[in-house]
Amino acid sequence: MFDVQASIGPVHILKPEYGSDLLKELQNYVRTNGINLAWLSGVGAVSRANIRYYEQPEQKWIDLALDQNLEVAGMWGNVSLLNGEPIVHVHIVLADSEGHCYGGHLADGTLVFNLEIMLTTLTGPNVIRKMDPQTGLTLWY
Amino acid sequence: MFDVQASIGPVHILKPEYGSDLLKELQNYVRTNGINLAWLSGVGAVSRANIRYYEQPEQKWIDLALDQNLEVAGMWGNVSLLNGEPIVHVHIVLADSEGHCYGGHLADGTLVFNLEIMLTTLTGPNVIRKMDPQTGLTLWY
Amino acid sequence: MFDVQASIGPVHILKPEYGSDLLKELQNYVRTNGINLAWLSGVGAVSRANIRYYEQPEQKWIDLALDQNLEVAGMWGNVSLLNGEPIVHVHIVLADSEGHCYGGHLADGTLVFNLEIMLTTLTGPNVIRKMDPQTGLTLWY
Repeated sequence: MFDVQASIGPVHILKPEYGSDLLKELQNYVRTNGINLAWLSGVGAVSRANIRYYEQPEQKWIDLALDQNLEVAGMWGNVSLLNGEPIVHVHIVLADSEGHCYGGHLADGTLVFNLEIMLTTLTGPNVIRKMDPQTGLTLWY
Repeated sequence: MFDVQASIGPVHILKPEYGSDLLKELQNYVRTNGINLAWLSGVGAVSRANIRYYEQPEQKWIDLALDQNLEVAGMWGNVSLLNGEPIVHVHIVLADSEGHCYGGHLADGTLVFNLEIMLTTLTGPNVIRKMDPQTGLTLWY
Repeated sequence: MFDVQASIGPVHILKPEYGSDLLKELQNYVRTNGINLAWLSGVGAVSRANIRYYEQPEQKWIDLALDQNLEVAGMWGNVSLLNGEPIVHVHIVLADSEGHCYGGHLADGTLVFNLEIMLTTLTGPNVIRKMDPQTGLTLWY
């Protein structure tokens, strides 16, 4: 098992602006602040969402556009390095007006209504992604 | 982006009593223990649940009563200040006997079967909610 | 409310091997590394999953086999002691190609496509499970 040991550093309590692009805001935040290793979790609501499912045998993404107001039941992910730059990887579960849930990989175009995020910075060796031919994804190695 | 930096303090490993009201117990716990800033996560099961969805344009809540035994696939949230008192904000995903999920904002009337919660206290500036007219919610500012 | 106070120790950033059994790998990891108290969270994908729902009145498990490739929207859980050995308790939410979610208690036979896990070790008093007749589960006491 891939295993990197790290220590917990400062925590950032974040609220992206109303109407902003959730993933882009997080991506911009970690680059601006030089955060290369972190874990995050959040709850809130979005006015619309784009999520993705990965077709494992075909090694391609399916895009799912959810053009409705949704609760963010939760979102979770991490920050590590790809090509020397921090990259944010987030999964999300959204809930509609009947409580039904939609989950997947968070994509650009998900618009913030309100999000309350805790990003925990970590101090340790670099955790680096590179293309993994077996899965077709950029994974830790 | 709203951004408050904090440090991690002691962690509380919590199990509310069987049959108790999950949100009320958490709310009472943080007030009794003077916890003003925290993040929490948990898993378990409930004998019934009340969750809510926020209608964004109408700025009103829809209440969803789930009168069945459910797994708590997960719950996540935070503690911050409203009117000088700590307030717990939690989202939850519940799963029924076929694995189908229901998610939303945790409301009173959700009854504990078993819950295993980690509440991480944070030390930092006060994080305060007030009414936000744009969303109709009490948000960090 | 059951309440144990602990401190955060080192964090382990984990990626179980492609094709491995997710729960067995985690279980083996904590035993091999002598981790008796921890919290964990993860995101990724699996090639298939086994989850469980607990019938509360009957005190028995329903097994749900999901024989399809699925996103791991998220997984969360903890490590505590049962019969003197660390035991991993994890809940999971999975999402299919339409974003529909399935949640429950993670069981053996869930096979890793890719998983990115943060396991936060905790230092504190032992947290011990034993059989609880009221629920039929091995719970903290």
